[in-house]
Amino acid sequence: MAAVQPVIEHPRKAFGWAARDPSGLLSPFNFSRRETGEKDVAFKVLYCGVCHSDLHMLKNEWGVSTYPLVPGHEIVGIVKEVGSKVEKFKVGDKVGVGCMVGSCKSCQSCSDNLENYCPKMILTYGSKYVDGSATYGGYSDLMVAEERFVIRIPDGLALDFAAPLLCAGITVYSPLRYFGLDKPGLHVGVVGLGGLGHLGVKFAKAFGAKVTVISTSPNKKEEAIERLGADSFVLSTEPVQIKAVLGTLDGIIDTVSAAHPLLPLLGLLKSHGKLVLLGIPEKTLDVPVFPLIMGRKTIAGSSIGGIKETQEMMNFASKHNVKPDIEVIPMDYVNTAMERLLKADVKYRFVIDIGNTLKPSL
Amino acid sequence: MAAVQPVIEHPRKAFGWAARDPSGLLSPFNFSRRETGEKDVAFKVLYCGVCHSDLHMLKNEWGVSTYPLVPGHEIVGIVKEVGSKVEKFKVGDKVGVGCMVGSCKSCQSCSDNLENYCPKMILTYGSKYVDGSATYGGYSDLMVAEERFVIRIPDGLALDFAAPLLCAGITVYSPLRYFGLDKPGLHVGVVGLGGLGHLGVKFAKAFGAKVTVISTSPNKKEEAIERLGADSFVLSTEPVQIKAVLGTLDGIIDTVSAAHPLLPLLGLLKSHGKLVLLGIPEKTLDVPVFPLIMGRKTIAGSSIGGIKETQEMMNFASKHNVKPDIEVIPMDYVNTAMERLLKADVKYRFVIDIGNTLKPSL
Repeated sequence: MAAVQPVIEHPRKAFGWAARDPSGLLSPFNFSRRETGEKDVAFKVLYCGVCHSDLHMLKNEWGVSTYPLVPGHEIVGIVKEVGSKVEKFKVGDKVGVGCMVGSCKSCQSCSDNLENYCPKMILTYGSKYVDGSATYGGYSDLMVAEERFVIRIPDGLALDFAAPLLCAGITVYSPLRYFGLDKPGLHVGVVGLGGLGHLGVKFAKAFGAKVTVISTSPNKKEEAIERLGADSFVLSTEPVQIKAVLGTLDGIIDTVSAAHPLLPLLGLLKSHGKLVLLGIPEKTLDVPVFPLIMGRKTIAGSSIGGIKETQEMMNFASKHNVKPDIEVIPMDYVNTAMERLLKADVKYRFVIDIGNTLKPSL
Repeated sequence: MAAVQPVIEHPRKAFGWAARDPSGLLSPFNFSRRETGEKDVAFKVLYCGVCHSDLHMLKNEWGVSTYPLVPGHEIVGIVKEVGSKVEKFKVGDKVGVGCMVGSCKSCQSCSDNLENYCPKMILTYGSKYVDGSATYGGYSDLMVAEERFVIRIPDGLALDFAAPLLCAGITVYSPLRYFGLDKPGLHVGVVGLGGLGHLGVKFAKAFGAKVTVISTSPNKKEEAIERLGADSFVLSTEPVQIKAVLGTLDGIIDTVSAAHPLLPLLGLLKSHGKLVLLGIPEKTLDVPVFPLIMGRKTIAGSSIGGIKETQEMMNFASKHNVKPDIEVIPMDYVNTAMERLLKADVKYRFVIDIGNTLKPSL
């Protein structure tokens, strides 16, 4: 049973699109945002990426959704107002907010700039803010967030391209860095070519790795190599192709959420190789222990990244021209986009043109 | 079907105890060893530890055994002869041989002093040597091994206590080091209190960690704390005890071979914590992905250690007085010892007094 969130009225009018129930259908929605607090940054939203988790949340597929639900956690725009104690941003700056808008700021994770692993991390939407009000995401005209959780968008990055980096980008960048897969000359595998996977290929290439895309779809081969710049492609349903790359990968970024066999992937790794899971399947995965032990291999998980690292990723993307492949859509196309997303019919990220197409209701 | 190994005759007579078939029953056995090659060290065996894998191999439980099979890969003794190109050892030195006696010496693993992950690693017994002859282990009077695979036993370590370090010791030491669990102030969990687990507690304590033993047997609590020096004990079947240590461990050394649930263990780890599996269950393990991703946790495996690290471990054990708890037995007690080992009725390692109790047949 999905909960209905009591609406707390803030003084500032805001407008967006919300789902009212687990049908997930989005429609125009009037709500409110808090006044700009002394440490807050308020910005006009110009673009917002459409993440696959938006779809899960709209339909309450994780059982944690509250309605009305305004999704969106790949939010970029222009600063309109800053609080008196804000130090890093000023009116007119290009900024973004990703998956989180708050954390405890006192635990070990927060001290280590890993707010993403803080047990009290507050999600950008569908969560409860410190004042008790619901958090609303970026499918809306205006965002107010604490400075600590705001990312600067470098001048070299167009805002529509920057949006998906705030979730999809950092989700692949962080494990490449943490698990040491960011060094030139390494051989990195990417499983799954969606919003995350296609950025995994691009970041791994930018780090100087040789990149092999591993997929169950033969028609992804040309895409992977011609369009995204991967060095090679392995059809994981073909034993001959799998055999040819056995024991050659230093690490694998696995972006697939559906349950899938891990044994072939572990076989592709060199000794001491790392298989990093980014997608959460509904069921547990079967893990064969023998190849883990005999090759000192690792299976690990990773979830987005801290704010400091997200800024580092954004600067890296700007410097190395790492951009997602996007399809910019108008606000009123969003329900159709969700249907297409469900069929993986997007290359590779929808970005809503909020600034030009979100029309306030009267 | 277990293979029968054709016996290649070497010029040097040797004597030990062997199993002739998968009954696993050991009895006196005359065989031969090669002459001391120019890079070989020949030593009189004085003690040999009894590893649980000896039991698996005797009974062909892994399906790879060849007979006659002379087990034993925790072998220590005194050098009797060295080849002309041996540089590190001389007659009279105290030495040991662990799980391996050969490797390719040219692959990346060998270059990195990780011969234990070389695909062509040659096991101390039940394997085939480069000359095509069967390898025979340390339940025997004499050992001949290439210098590269021989460990020096420091003066501070009694030979009987040194024996189990060559397999059980390095098997827990290596992952504590590689996965960064060797720093003072960390909190390390040890699952399973057998040959490996009890040394896991001791090495982790020697590194300065706080050590918690996790077990399904309440009667292990006093053992763990009073005898082995663990700081605390968690009965993993008691939710209240599990709850009290949730999210407090930096890493876990899991020595249990039987299939067991990983979810509670992952719950005990802090964010970024590491669960290292050392035992190989027959079936795959169920791995819940959610806790891996939400805490950037790792499940990994590890297998013994390289020769360089084994020497380092031996020196560390001598310096920090890390000794296994052993029960020294005569050679003719070995079949009874195997029965007791099957029931985990040993604290914590049988060591055969080869030097004093192995009687040559006429």
